[in-house]
Amino acid sequence: MTVTGFNPGCKFWLEKGGRVYGDGLFNLLLLVREKGSISAAASELGMSYRAAWGKIKQAERSWGLKLVETRVGGECGGGAALTREAQDLLHRYEQYRQEAARAVRRVFHQLFEWKT
Amino acid sequence: MTVTGFNPGCKFWLEKGGRVYGDGLFNLLLLVREKGSISAAASELGMSYRAAWGKIKQAERSWGLKLVETRVGGECGGGAALTREAQDLLHRYEQYRQEAARAVRRVFHQLFEWKT
Repeated sequence: MTVTGFNPGCKFWLEKGGRVYGDGLFNLLLLVREKGSISAAASELGMSYRAAWGKIKQAERSWGLKLVETRVGGECGGGAALTREAQDLLHRYEQYRQEAARAVRRVFHQLFEWKT
Repeated sequence: MTVTGFNPGCKFWLEKGGRVYGDGLFNLLLLVREKGSISAAASELGMSYRAAWGKIKQAERSWGLKLVETRVGGECGGGAALTREAQDLLHRYEQYRQEAARAVRRVFHQLFEWKT
């Protein structure tokens, strides 16, 4: 191979019903899990609470599934938590993202004989 | 798994020296190979000859490699052909794109237990 110095680039997402669900939604869910609050997660991502809430609600409607439940006391008093289904889905998405990137690097190395 | 109906989405490219080389460049090279002409390839992609030429020249400069040679008679009389290096690179890129997509689908099916 005469050309070296390439690196593989890749991006992954999920599609359903003509819509795209990717790092935007799943990073938001990840932060809700971590911080126990939609507003804290939104603020970490530089989003408004309204935008974060809308993103989660849109996915819930489109998937027919509850993703986040607010605890007693509401968002301010009690915070928010991922449902079991959302935790499961997030876990799979994180594995998908990691393993897919690893698989792409493997293909790349076989074809471009390039060591990192 | 309570949520089904997802499909995997993915996009691949190559990176080198802070620049990104993806389907835009490689589809252009593919059409140059097929049509034996930069202007015919550009027109097929709805690009100007100038834009197509610039895209190829930028890659040639950045990779230190000739990708396209114009034959005797110039672009109008003799047409254009890929160099051996460009053919090799294009061949690898096509394999990379196909095999990477296949690998991602495999990972997806393992994680989301979804049959297409």
